[in-house]
Amino acid sequence: MFKDATIEEINSAAVLAWKTFHIYRKQSLKQRADFMRAIAVEIDALGASLIETAMKETNLPEARLQGERARTIFQLNSYAEACERGDWLEARIDTAIPTKTPPKPDIRKMLVPLGPVVVFGASNFPFAYSTAGGDTACAFAAGCPVIVKAHPAHAATSELVAGAILKAAEKSNMPQGIFAHIHSSGFEGGKALVMHPHVKAVGFTGSFIGGKALFDLANQRKEPIPVFSEMGSTNPVFLLPEKLNASATDIAKMYAGSITLSVGQFCTNPGLIIGIAGPSLQNFKDNLAAEIKNIAPATMLHPGIAKAFVGKREAALKQPSVETVAVSSLPSKENQGTPTIASVDAKTFLKNPLLHQEIFGPYSLIVSCADMKEMTAVAQHLEGQLTSTLMATDKEIMENEDLVEAVKNICGRFILNGVPTGVEVCLSMHHGGPFPATTDSRFTSVGADGIKRFARPVAFQNWSNALLPDELKNENPLNIWRTVNNMLTKDVSTV
Amino acid sequence: MFKDATIEEINSAAVLAWKTFHIYRKQSLKQRADFMRAIAVEIDALGASLIETAMKETNLPEARLQGERARTIFQLNSYAEACERGDWLEARIDTAIPTKTPPKPDIRKMLVPLGPVVVFGASNFPFAYSTAGGDTACAFAAGCPVIVKAHPAHAATSELVAGAILKAAEKSNMPQGIFAHIHSSGFEGGKALVMHPHVKAVGFTGSFIGGKALFDLANQRKEPIPVFSEMGSTNPVFLLPEKLNASATDIAKMYAGSITLSVGQFCTNPGLIIGIAGPSLQNFKDNLAAEIKNIAPATMLHPGIAKAFVGKREAALKQPSVETVAVSSLPSKENQGTPTIASVDAKTFLKNPLLHQEIFGPYSLIVSCADMKEMTAVAQHLEGQLTSTLMATDKEIMENEDLVEAVKNICGRFILNGVPTGVEVCLSMHHGGPFPATTDSRFTSVGADGIKRFARPVAFQNWSNALLPDELKNENPLNIWRTVNNMLTKDVSTV
Repeated sequence: MFKDATIEEINSAAVLAWKTFHIYRKQSLKQRADFMRAIAVEIDALGASLIETAMKETNLPEARLQGERARTIFQLNSYAEACERGDWLEARIDTAIPTKTPPKPDIRKMLVPLGPVVVFGASNFPFAYSTAGGDTACAFAAGCPVIVKAHPAHAATSELVAGAILKAAEKSNMPQGIFAHIHSSGFEGGKALVMHPHVKAVGFTGSFIGGKALFDLANQRKEPIPVFSEMGSTNPVFLLPEKLNASATDIAKMYAGSITLSVGQFCTNPGLIIGIAGPSLQNFKDNLAAEIKNIAPATMLHPGIAKAFVGKREAALKQPSVETVAVSSLPSKENQGTPTIASVDAKTFLKNPLLHQEIFGPYSLIVSCADMKEMTAVAQHLEGQLTSTLMATDKEIMENEDLVEAVKNICGRFILNGVPTGVEVCLSMHHGGPFPATTDSRFTSVGADGIKRFARPVAFQNWSNALLPDELKNENPLNIWRTVNNMLTKDVSTV
Repeated sequence: MFKDATIEEINSAAVLAWKTFHIYRKQSLKQRADFMRAIAVEIDALGASLIETAMKETNLPEARLQGERARTIFQLNSYAEACERGDWLEARIDTAIPTKTPPKPDIRKMLVPLGPVVVFGASNFPFAYSTAGGDTACAFAAGCPVIVKAHPAHAATSELVAGAILKAAEKSNMPQGIFAHIHSSGFEGGKALVMHPHVKAVGFTGSFIGGKALFDLANQRKEPIPVFSEMGSTNPVFLLPEKLNASATDIAKMYAGSITLSVGQFCTNPGLIIGIAGPSLQNFKDNLAAEIKNIAPATMLHPGIAKAFVGKREAALKQPSVETVAVSSLPSKENQGTPTIASVDAKTFLKNPLLHQEIFGPYSLIVSCADMKEMTAVAQHLEGQLTSTLMATDKEIMENEDLVEAVKNICGRFILNGVPTGVEVCLSMHHGGPFPATTDSRFTSVGADGIKRFARPVAFQNWSNALLPDELKNENPLNIWRTVNNMLTKDVSTV
């Protein structure tokens, strides 16, 4: 057990982070990138002890944690590369036109860091979305110091990673206060961090209740600040009839795997499957049921999550017109999640908001519609989602434009003939989506575009070349892409 | 006088805008751009009657309004060009790597429109920041229908411009409901618009009270939506001693003009001038006083603004230790703004929040500091600003890094040796700034980057080339810049 930080300690961390911000933001893109790469090295150097500690705290299997550690290291290294490449700076130069009436001044713009960032890690990703995860990496790349509130469910793992960050900071000659690590078992510590006037942005991955509470707090500040809460979703999957006819067995097999992967503990877990009533959907259900019955329950991240799963699953199964399609037939122990599939008709689903809620764990609800029109109505009435998926033939995509547009309109990632689980770390990834999937649909928490969450533009007007930041100097010393007089180029700017 | 819209009429407009959104967002960049250019043509075609109507309603002089109309037309045309160029779409392509474990899918990302946008125009810019102003132009470029709440102070002008937009919409075969124009003299109409579930973003230019109220309303919705309120600021100007020594007279003359331009009715009006006590500052004060005394009071936009100016100016002048430096010596009529300069010491200024508030009109407060350290303290304690300005020699910039960094940190546009009035319309412009200058420091309301306010990313995973939007197809049919496998290029993507 780790001691909760006092309010005084939290205040000190914020004050120090603010002071450090004025030093760190002046460091070059290369210095920031080198620091991030040094963190990756130190995390790797923690070796087996990191994996063992995380296994104990999260019940996640060794291979999964090794994969997640590799992903975390890849994030740090690839965001470091993106940081140096500098595309994210959105550098723009418009040169002066002294002959214009009135004369047009020289104006140049780039993104600058917001200030100290507070990160709340996720319980289900002890590495990749936690202490040195995507939010922290993006904030460092942007030029912001970070204060992490450790997730209480994996506090020791978080301590180890925090140690690696501090070691890397020291080796990279980073200023004191570039990173702080706070333990707080209740809500008060997190609240104090979000409300502190020196904190300028918040990253959060977790429940709707937690993420929305931070968003509301931040908006009640004298100076409201951006909160990037990623709060999960039900990730609806739409099964179109022609596709389902052709491959019900394969789709059932693929989805049985996706629904139960890591005991369903992914924010991209497919929690809703929408089809059209008939023999193909029945065939799919039968196949999915057969698969699910043979998938063993497994221990969830922590007792709180297991208890919430049992409670929410039971409440859903008790709703009028909800039928249980399949439950794992294998024995279950305490704190394990039992794979479960239920079904309901679309009319009932549309009227019952409880059935729209995410049930975090190995559970999915099949919604059967009378026809395509009703399927489109379901898509139009769903809340914002991280992902939505269409299982469809090309012909079905072309012939059902209303459905396709409605499904696209509710999601951040739009998948065709695949599963939503598995979030690739790359620039084209959008891990975000309309509310309530996140509190800000315009930004991603995966991929290097996430750096932009922690930056804002500043325009420099009438500065001489020598006084401009390197990013905006005529000679383009950093060799970055810039928009010069409306043209993207790496050339030196013409004055 | 125009009839206030009923709540039923407001609801109908929002419902129609939502329906139209699903049609308009599928229109090509070229169709959107052509529509915007058609609006510019129709506004131009309104001819003298538009200028005459605006002159009557706003008391602004003819030449100023002609300039503003030209600016509005330039905005529509240049944002149309930016819309077609497509850089704002942030198109990214990461091609599949089937040999990776697990296989990496093909992922492609671009910005898509948010949905219907509500625009609240500004009283001080009846064209450029109103009915067909920057917010409306950006929303159309992004693919969003627009509902404008006319500013009651220039409702007839707004009607004329709305007519031009509707004419352009008809000629461009735009869907019914692409644009709606609402009159509402009280707060209820605006509130109903912002709270409507089919409205997805809000643009506002005006007072802090109005902009913050809309921001708070939008955050209390079941589904919070982004509000881009540009709420003005005091635009501090820092006079460094060496520069002031060398050119006190010129600076005084330049600033007398900037402070009183358009009766000081600009959100970028320099309302604070910070210097170091001594003979140079006294010399500057004397010169500024001499100029101000000879600048005639002029009629303000409307009686409400004139009354607010008088009240706020009086309250400021009555604060302890505030001295009146100069007041126009020329005769003043009802509803006119009288050019006024006051001064105060930095210690008093730092302690009195009332003196930090914007006084909308031809007023500026000179803050005299004991030394550079106190000047830096003033910069560090100022609220967020649209602009800040340094009047300094290159040597002074290089030798006062703390001050320079503090001044940069509070503003959206950072000016060296110039005046903040005059907001150039170009891509490198940032018209925004930290709270309370705006409610979202990450976005601009001037320049084509403002389009991004009304869009969000969607990632397409595993879509075949034929089914992808043109923006993301392999062959790059729109010839736009895209980041393909981390490289910016216009080339076709390699699969």
